[in-house]
Amino acid sequence: MRKARGLPSFFAVGDAASLRRVWAGPVAPIATPQEAVALFDSALPCLQVADAGDIVPGSPSVDGARTAFQALEAAVGLARTGSAAGIVTAPVGKEQLYGVGFTHPGQTEFVAERCGVAPHNAVMMLAGPSLKVVPVTIHIPLADVPSVLTIDLIRARATTTVKGLQRNFGIPRPRIVVAGLNPHAGEGGALGREEIEIISPAIDSLREEGMDIVGPLSADGLFHARARETYDAVLCMYHDQALIPLKTLHFDEGVNITLGLPIVRTSPDHGTAFGIAGKDNANPGAMMAALKMAAEAARSRLSHGL
Amino acid sequence: MRKARGLPSFFAVGDAASLRRVWAGPVAPIATPQEAVALFDSALPCLQVADAGDIVPGSPSVDGARTAFQALEAAVGLARTGSAAGIVTAPVGKEQLYGVGFTHPGQTEFVAERCGVAPHNAVMMLAGPSLKVVPVTIHIPLADVPSVLTIDLIRARATTTVKGLQRNFGIPRPRIVVAGLNPHAGEGGALGREEIEIISPAIDSLREEGMDIVGPLSADGLFHARARETYDAVLCMYHDQALIPLKTLHFDEGVNITLGLPIVRTSPDHGTAFGIAGKDNANPGAMMAALKMAAEAARSRLSHGL
Repeated sequence: MRKARGLPSFFAVGDAASLRRVWAGPVAPIATPQEAVALFDSALPCLQVADAGDIVPGSPSVDGARTAFQALEAAVGLARTGSAAGIVTAPVGKEQLYGVGFTHPGQTEFVAERCGVAPHNAVMMLAGPSLKVVPVTIHIPLADVPSVLTIDLIRARATTTVKGLQRNFGIPRPRIVVAGLNPHAGEGGALGREEIEIISPAIDSLREEGMDIVGPLSADGLFHARARETYDAVLCMYHDQALIPLKTLHFDEGVNITLGLPIVRTSPDHGTAFGIAGKDNANPGAMMAALKMAAEAARSRLSHGL
Repeated sequence: MRKARGLPSFFAVGDAASLRRVWAGPVAPIATPQEAVALFDSALPCLQVADAGDIVPGSPSVDGARTAFQALEAAVGLARTGSAAGIVTAPVGKEQLYGVGFTHPGQTEFVAERCGVAPHNAVMMLAGPSLKVVPVTIHIPLADVPSVLTIDLIRARATTTVKGLQRNFGIPRPRIVVAGLNPHAGEGGALGREEIEIISPAIDSLREEGMDIVGPLSADGLFHARARETYDAVLCMYHDQALIPLKTLHFDEGVNITLGLPIVRTSPDHGTAFGIAGKDNANPGAMMAALKMAAEAARSRLSHGL
């Protein structure tokens, strides 16, 4: 079934007993990543982390959080050393994680630190079959967005986006479109001046350096089918400007891919949904898309020597 | 052809000579609206406004602006007196209009004034085949949105939206969903407090009064196909929050319908596009949708006695 769906070989890192409680198929414990490929046809290989304890799927607990934390740590290590081509993280219950010594805002920041990358240089891209978006600002109140936007920040996000598209998607010369912050991209200053004072100068300087980048354009005109054919990714100014079109178009297949890391890291763009654990009615679309995208990104990096 | 496309009988108000320059089909000048229905099968009826002057399609001019202004004024009069079931306004060049004594920010405010409705009570709804959205704030800088939002404003917009859905779409008990302002609708206050201090109190008070209204919900989860089945309209906090999903889904068929007026008024949700005037490559989808929606709204009002 996994082959029919075009999934790459992968293995779970975590607790085999917990997996068996939520999935009826065969789970094959493995001791090293090397065993995974041979077993993958007949079972889901699982690399066991040490002391999983008693985990009840759907019930967030200290044991579950510790296992998730250890699994993340182990997975990053495997990817860093080349034993895995990349990692796909599942959503976690952050509240519980904080209770077992996890001090990062999220998994992305943890992975970045373990890779020696400053957290602000690990950039979230949301990708679906027909759209890739990168929010310049993410989890901050909307009222704070205008003051957080700077020429330098937009330049940094655009540069990481271009490199990320080259490395992970094999696009030699990515076409970037930048959304405006205000309605109608400010309408020449009448509806806000951030386009004139911040966004345009950033774009102009990047274009002078040779980047294929246009904007700022009205955000509402950027995401219909014809518009999506004109670029490889849209740089958005805030969370919902990026997430609304992505989830409107690709709600069940959105993938979060972290750009700016030395390793491949993807994640399905959904939450934990503890409430449906083990009920066999989860939609695996986004997780499958995240697995496939991780494999493609790893192949792209290999073939381009990046 | 117009019949095959399911269009209702309509007539143009403006300048027959200008129409002939941009359209190869037959144009039939009429002196009164009553003549339109009989002629509609064979030609596009056009009620001539007085002194059209020499208008060159695609070239904004004083003569063109004066004709547009007079046409708007005449059309509102016809709808007010019942000679027309409603009006559909085409986009106008505002800069030119301002030069001929037009003092309103846009056509909506002009129509509202002529109908005796305060401009802030004329509410813009954007409607496509699978989505209707009402932005609570519209043409203001994004930085101003948080300070403009008030409990009263949200209550007023929601109330007008419900009445508008009843009158124009014949929905007896409209289901309203309200989007949050901040990422993840504020995440319990961690990402902004407007949901707690402004949006939720407005929703709670309306629900107590019997309105079918829920929210605030994360804006990025509101617009995929399954979500759209759960409501009749979404109340959005700002321009792009409403326009991004609408235009992502329905770029060529979005209709602007003004709620809160005693008359029916719709408009295609696109600009003038002077650059393609007379080139026969305009997409008429939104204009056709606006004509159909106006007719349906007029029928709904008649049948419900509203």
